Order: sequence, then structure tokens, then C-alpha cells
Amino acid sequence: MAHSEFDLIYRYLASFGTGPNTVLGVGDDAAVMSVPAGHELLVSSDTQVEGVHFFPDTLPENLAYRVVSAAASDLAAMGATPLGMTLSLTLPEADELWLHSFSMGLGAVVSDLSLPLVGGDVTRGSLTLGVTVLGHSPVGAWVPRTGAQVGDWLCVSGSIGDAACALALMSGELTDLDCLDPDDEQYLEQRFYRPTPRLALADWLRQTATACIDVSDGLLADCGHIGRASGVGCRIDATKVPLSASLSKLPGEQALRWALTGGDDYELVMTVPEGTPLPDGITQIGQVTDDDGVTCTGYSGDDLVSKDQGYDHFRG
Amino acid sequence: MAHSEFDLIYRYLASFGTGPNTVLGVGDDAAVMSVPAGHELLVSSDTQVEGVHFFPDTLPENLAYRVVSAAASDLAAMGATPLGMTLSLTLPEADELWLHSFSMGLGAVVSDLSLPLVGGDVTRGSLTLGVTVLGHSPVGAWVPRTGAQVGDWLCVSGSIGDAACALALMSGELTDLDCLDPDDEQYLEQRFYRPTPRLALADWLRQTATACIDVSDGLLADCGHIGRASGVGCRIDATKVPLSASLSKLPGEQALRWALTGGDDYELVMTVPEGTPLPDGITQIGQVTDDDGVTCTGYSGDDLVSKDQGYDHFRG
Repeated sequence: MAHSEFDLIYRYLASFGTGPNTVLGVGDDAAVMSVPAGHELLVSSDTQVEGVHFFPDTLPENLAYRVVSAAASDLAAMGATPLGMTLSLTLPEADELWLHSFSMGLGAVVSDLSLPLVGGDVTRGSLTLGVTVLGHSPVGAWVPRTGAQVGDWLCVSGSIGDAACALALMSGELTDLDCLDPDDEQYLEQRFYRPTPRLALADWLRQTATACIDVSDGLLADCGHIGRASGVGCRIDATKVPLSASLSKLPGEQALRWALTGGDDYELVMTVPEGTPLPDGITQIGQVTDDDGVTCTGYSGDDLVSKDQGYDHFRG
Repeated sequence: MAHSEFDLIYRYLASFGTGPNTVLGVGDDAAVMSVPAGHELLVSSDTQVEGVHFFPDTLPENLAYRVVSAAASDLAAMGATPLGMTLSLTLPEADELWLHSFSMGLGAVVSDLSLPLVGGDVTRGSLTLGVTVLGHSPVGAWVPRTGAQVGDWLCVSGSIGDAACALALMSGELTDLDCLDPDDEQYLEQRFYRPTPRLALADWLRQTATACIDVSDGLLADCGHIGRASGVGCRIDATKVPLSASLSKLPGEQALRWALTGGDDYELVMTVPEGTPLPDGITQIGQVTDDDGVTCTGYSGDDLVSKDQGYDHFRG
């Protein structure tokens, strides 16, 4: 790719750069953003590599949407409000069809999440996407992993396990599909490729939650992260874990296994003081304990401890 | 690489995360930073790929230093003060010797530039380094590319061309070395691998400069970027371009050719009002004109216009 081709691509992708906090977008040595007075800056970077984090034949439109959503989910887990992002796009070649599709997904996710693209670069190499997301929060009001208290309710947003099921469908691992109709399959794939980072929960989380994390390694593993960071344990009642209507059509233990161990949903797990009124879309699934590690009742699958599927720190 | 190996690497690299503005460093879903009241946030991302931006056998210590310096140079060019950075490290394998050397360079550059590493990730894939740098500046005081005025002096920091000469030395392109002694070669390599982003000029630039850019594409090309962004032209007197003692040992036209067209020095080009007193280390090399494009006197090499070496927008 010649230098001018990079310029062209970059201008192509750089039309998504305006937002209420964008002072200077793409085109100078650095972008300039305003952080509201009395707020702190939050920053997180997320890299995804073809063949490691996504299938080589992933529709570029879906890829853009998913990679940005995954990064933005880290802001959601802190209770942050989106400010903007940079995108580092490493591409083997300048393929116009690919770029057109990619920019469609990018435009959609920038708009859906109010997360303007203020900078980044385009380089030549194996397909790799690096996203750095920036957000803000009133000073000290963001939600860490470290604040869970014994007795707190353990809660989760939305429903869990869909993305892991979708991955099994797409990879061909799940072949007995009689129980799923085409609408279910489409729903599950959308959940994988178009996750909804729970940025809309920011106000409630900042006011209520004692700790929060996004479900990226799997529910058990991520509860373990909160537990270790806060010096507490977690007890999960698997029968309370919210499953989508589509996932519920699968045999119970299989659906639950994805819900407990599958990542990629980008829902949030949070702890709140016992008895806190929960808004729609938030489900209590357990409680914070003074035990060590994560215990899970209501699930009989003994395979959870023995295999390494995103819950290597699981004990129970 | 297993998941736990990534964790290990990340903890290894994450010991450089504390700074005066770090509220929460590595280890949560996002880092938290404070931006001083009355200041704006500046952000820039820079990706470097093995075999494209650096030689496969580059000493990891040098690689870390150079990649971070290159990214920080974009902050310097805006007159920004460093706040922190994230590093996305994509590695084919967890090689302890490599990581040890890399972390040595990383620690050095974090310390030298006061640029704490507050976040990032480690993934598996072809060796790729993505750095996002964050800085701050009093509201509106940062220096864009767009403010150059006809009559302004065109100036450059430090000396130019050393890195391009070093690259020619290392690649074997430059073979007639009789004029250089080992100290010169060492100096030139240091200039390539240990560039000094001119962050120390921030106060002076914010108070004085009308436009600024860092020399990454080459002096002529980067003056062209300022000219186009500001709607002006630039006239450069090649005889005024500052060369290091080592570079000056090479035949005049060869040294000057690197100075005019070689990138990678990460010096700054800035425009200041005519007659502005210049601090040590800043040299006037020309003037802003109402011409179109960049003209260069004092250099007879006709090859500058015809070849694509980082100055494709050069006219003159």
C-alpha cells in the first residue's frame, strides 16, 4: 500500500469524529477533547487479531461493530460516559469492498454508542484492530472491581450465554439444531456480533454499585475477578441466571454451561447493597460471601472445574 | 500462550503505571486519570509492525524506547504535557528474554518522558506494537498545524537527518564508511533508537508557535503538511538546516538529502512570528510565504521531486 492509499483509507474512516467533546478531531498530530469540569478521564485499550479473536471470514461490518463494542464495554463496567476513541487498523491490503463494509459497521457503532472516532492510524500487516476508548465520570464516582462487600447482592445485566452459543453455532460445534428455528439463530448471531455494551447503566451504577466488571471471560471467571479484587467470595444460584428465550430452548445444562462459562456477551456483573431496588434488565443471581472463591449451586455439571474455558480461577 | 501467561506478561509490563495524574492504573476494566482543571485532553495512537516499521532483529529494548518516543512526539508537536499511555502488545510467543529486554526499554522511556503506562493488553499474533499517548494542555493553548502566517519564521528543533543516515547504515545501504568513526556510528544509531521527543519545548511552543508538526515523514514533506493545513507556502534555505557533527562528516549533498527527506528524527518543525527570540536548540531554516507548496534553495539535488521517499507532496 502506498502512502497515499493510507491517507485515503484514513480519510474514509475518519468521518465519524465529531461529538460534543471533540475539540479537534482527525488530521493533526493529536486529537483534542474536553473533559467536563469535575470529571476524571477513563481509558482502556483492546486489541483483536484475525484468527485469534475472530474468524478470518467475519463480515467486516460485524467485525467493526463487535470490536468497538467490546472495548466500550470496559467503559460501561466502570460506570463511565463515552468521550471518544482511537482506532488502529492494521490491514494486509487496501481492499475497497472490505473497507466499505467495515466503515458501515464503524459508522453504526459510533452512532449507537455516541463514541466518536477522533484518531488512530492505518498500517500494513496481518489484520489487527486496536481500539482505545476514552470516557469520563464525576471524580471518584466510577465503579471499581474492588468495592464488593460481604452481604451485597450479586447481579447481572441482560441475559448471559447467547454469544457462547452463537460461537458454537458458527464454528459447527453445535450441530443438533432441531430445537432452534432460524429466528433464534439470527438472534444469537446478532448477540455475538452486535453486543450492546451497557453504557446506559452508567448513572445507576455510579449511584448504586459497590463493584462491577463486564462478562468477557465468563460469568464464573469474572465473578472470581471481582471476588479476588475485593477480598471476598461469591455464591451464585445458577437457577437464577437469566437466559434468553432462544438459549432456553436448548437442553438446560447445556444452556447453563454457556451462561456460566462463556464470555463475549459484554453484559455486566455488579454488586449492590442487599435489598437495593433493581431496575428492569438487572437480575440478582447470588450474594457476596466471606468465603474464598466462587461457589455455584443449581448446576450439576462436574466439568466446570476440570477444563480450561475461561474460568481457570474457579473454585467451588 | 495460555491465558495465565498473558496475565504474567501483563503484570510484568504493568509496573510502570504510576504518575502524578494516575488515579487508578492497570488492573481494572479501565484506568482512571485526572486532567488538570482548565486543561484539555490530547490523544494520539501510533502502531508499528515488525518488518514494516522496524527490522525483525531489532533489540527489544530499543524497540520499546523508539515506539513510545515516536508516539510521544505527537504530543510534543501539539505543545502538550504528557499524562500517560496505553500499550497494546501483540506477540507471537511469550519469550522471557525478549520480554525482559523490552521491559528494560519500556521502563527507561516511561521514566525519561514521565509517561506512565496505565493500561493496554497483550495478545497473540505477529509482532505489533500499538501505543496510545494522552497529554494535556491549557484550554486552547495547544499548537495546531493550521496557524502558520505569511512572514512567520520556519524553525526546526535539534538537528535533522541523523535517523535516516542511521537507517542507511543499519540496512547496509550506506557502505562507504571511511568518513565515520565508531563513535559517529553509535551516535547515529542512538538517534534512531533513542530519539528525544521534544516535550521540553511545550511551554515555549504554547506561548510562541503559530503552527507545529513533528518530523516523521521528512522535513520537506512535513513542511508541506503545515503549509497545506495553514493555506500558506514554505521557503526553506537548505544551507541553514542544522546537521549533527557526525552527519556533517558525510559528503554535503548526501547529508542534506537525508536532512530534507528522511523521517524518524522526531524533531519538531514550528512557525513563529518573524523576529521571535529563539531558545537554544531551535534554528530558523526558512520563512512562511504566500506561495503554493514548499520551495527549497541551497540544494542542487534534482532527485527530490521525482522519487517517493516521504515527500510526495513536495513541490518547488
